[in-house]
Amino acid sequence: MNNLNNVVAYFEAAFRKEIEKIGQTVPQKLYEPIAYSLSIGGKRLRPALMLQAASMYTSSIEQVLPAAMAIEIFHNFTLLHDDIMDKAEVRRGLPTVHKKYNKNIALLSGDAMSILSYRYFALCNDVRLHELLPLFTSTALEVCEGQQFDMDFESRDNVTVEEYLEMIRLKTAVLIAGSLKIGALLANAGPTDADLLYEYGINVGLAFQLQDDWLDTFGDPDAFGKTIGGDICANKKTYLLLKAYEACNLLMQNELTHWLRMAEFDREQKIAAITEIYRKTGVSEATRNLMKQYHEKSIIALQKLSVPAAQKNTLYAFAGEVMERIK
Amino acid sequence: MNNLNNVVAYFEAAFRKEIEKIGQTVPQKLYEPIAYSLSIGGKRLRPALMLQAASMYTSSIEQVLPAAMAIEIFHNFTLLHDDIMDKAEVRRGLPTVHKKYNKNIALLSGDAMSILSYRYFALCNDVRLHELLPLFTSTALEVCEGQQFDMDFESRDNVTVEEYLEMIRLKTAVLIAGSLKIGALLANAGPTDADLLYEYGINVGLAFQLQDDWLDTFGDPDAFGKTIGGDICANKKTYLLLKAYEACNLLMQNELTHWLRMAEFDREQKIAAITEIYRKTGVSEATRNLMKQYHEKSIIALQKLSVPAAQKNTLYAFAGEVMERIK
Repeated sequence: MNNLNNVVAYFEAAFRKEIEKIGQTVPQKLYEPIAYSLSIGGKRLRPALMLQAASMYTSSIEQVLPAAMAIEIFHNFTLLHDDIMDKAEVRRGLPTVHKKYNKNIALLSGDAMSILSYRYFALCNDVRLHELLPLFTSTALEVCEGQQFDMDFESRDNVTVEEYLEMIRLKTAVLIAGSLKIGALLANAGPTDADLLYEYGINVGLAFQLQDDWLDTFGDPDAFGKTIGGDICANKKTYLLLKAYEACNLLMQNELTHWLRMAEFDREQKIAAITEIYRKTGVSEATRNLMKQYHEKSIIALQKLSVPAAQKNTLYAFAGEVMERIK
Repeated sequence: MNNLNNVVAYFEAAFRKEIEKIGQTVPQKLYEPIAYSLSIGGKRLRPALMLQAASMYTSSIEQVLPAAMAIEIFHNFTLLHDDIMDKAEVRRGLPTVHKKYNKNIALLSGDAMSILSYRYFALCNDVRLHELLPLFTSTALEVCEGQQFDMDFESRDNVTVEEYLEMIRLKTAVLIAGSLKIGALLANAGPTDADLLYEYGINVGLAFQLQDDWLDTFGDPDAFGKTIGGDICANKKTYLLLKAYEACNLLMQNELTHWLRMAEFDREQKIAAITEIYRKTGVSEATRNLMKQYHEKSIIALQKLSVPAAQKNTLYAFAGEVMERIK
């Protein structure tokens, strides 16, 4: 497939049928919230990347569909439980599962989703299952570890840029990278190519998350679809904030600390003040520069792949889109 | 092994080492609660039954240890999340995970435990993994379904005895049955024996849960270790209550309903009144009779197993102990 949107559409069509089946399973109070959570949608990036990776090594990617569904169900399970932990009430414009139903139902449905992801994964080509299942479980555990580090950072004042980058590697990048690697292996790619696709995924994933941080402050409010400055108001320890702390002089450091410690504040004032510090410390450029480094690494990994150049176009293009995305 | 206590001790020794390793993994805030939850202990029934089943078909049961650990980790994960849902503060005399740490940590640690159980499971003899993983995931999903039915029943007034028995089959019996079947299959038992062990497990599991219900009302307070009448005070829809409703006359039905609807009551009075209804309706004997039926079915399944009679002794004895247990 030569365009990731085609792959997304291919996946979505197959996935919708499964979601419908899941939603009709008894007990309804367990499975209906799962179907709801899965149908809220999202970019379907991880399954699409898995299928795309597979398509570089096989023409029959339908064999990879169950694993692609497994990864998407797992991803949505983490979002569902994250929303409980973050007390988030809205996801993609719709009420979150614990808001629409209740916390206990959200907790239990999430648990069932996690198990369901393994059930789908077990449907994949069983010859490599003993090799792929540990890859899936390690990746899944790393996502939990990333979430735990993220929670730890909330109550810590001394988070370093390095710690932050490791956190987003675990929380975001490894699942993207794991999806690509599993897709390749299911299509019988060699171990070197599988590892290169993993490396591509890690670097694209890191750039993806940094762009998330960047958009929250410097994005176009109309395109972004979320309120600008959400991270700033929540004192979220993003790359921008940590980098600003590193780069700013004592005076600005005091001003930053002053805003972070203020229990009550005017939203617009706080966003304006901290954005100004970001501008003065060149944090926007620093973020873009780091993204460029990750982008370059992802391209180098792609170049080393043993498949004909034309088959890499979709992943080249995707790495570029991650750099340019505005929402 | 000719005694389940020996198997429990064998498992416990190996498991303690794993718990120690898990507890030392970073991030500590994620893995320490997992180690705590696993070390609270319990009877280790499921892994012991898995190992016992395996020992009937192989002399090298150490190959079954990872799957036995997987099942015990999964079981403890369900307890951890159940405790959040039930707002339970104490388990086996110690604070529950969400009480000792906090809810978010308990939620995330539980999620990681669930994943961890698959990681251990993936270590099992990989030749049968494509067959065993779906068995594990189906069983795990059924446990969630049972928990959902249990939650549904809380707000329903028309639960039937049949629905209740199906709920405890899912919530309790299938994991015991699945443990036995997986243990047998990992030791290369034939499919007929594996299914017979599953049947044994379902019936033993049902008897086990009924004895739980029975002990809550008719147990010896000193031996039981929990306060007698907890289910009665919580209006829990146990077999005893549902059977009493079925068996009692209109007068007693009104009295039962009266007690169930009372928002404030004297604990001892309520327990005495409902226990009296239980006595009049012969609910204790009905429970014991149903347990005997399940016990008989479990024995018949055992008898049909293709292994020498002497090797069945431990499971015969275990089925008998379930009938007699006082705590």
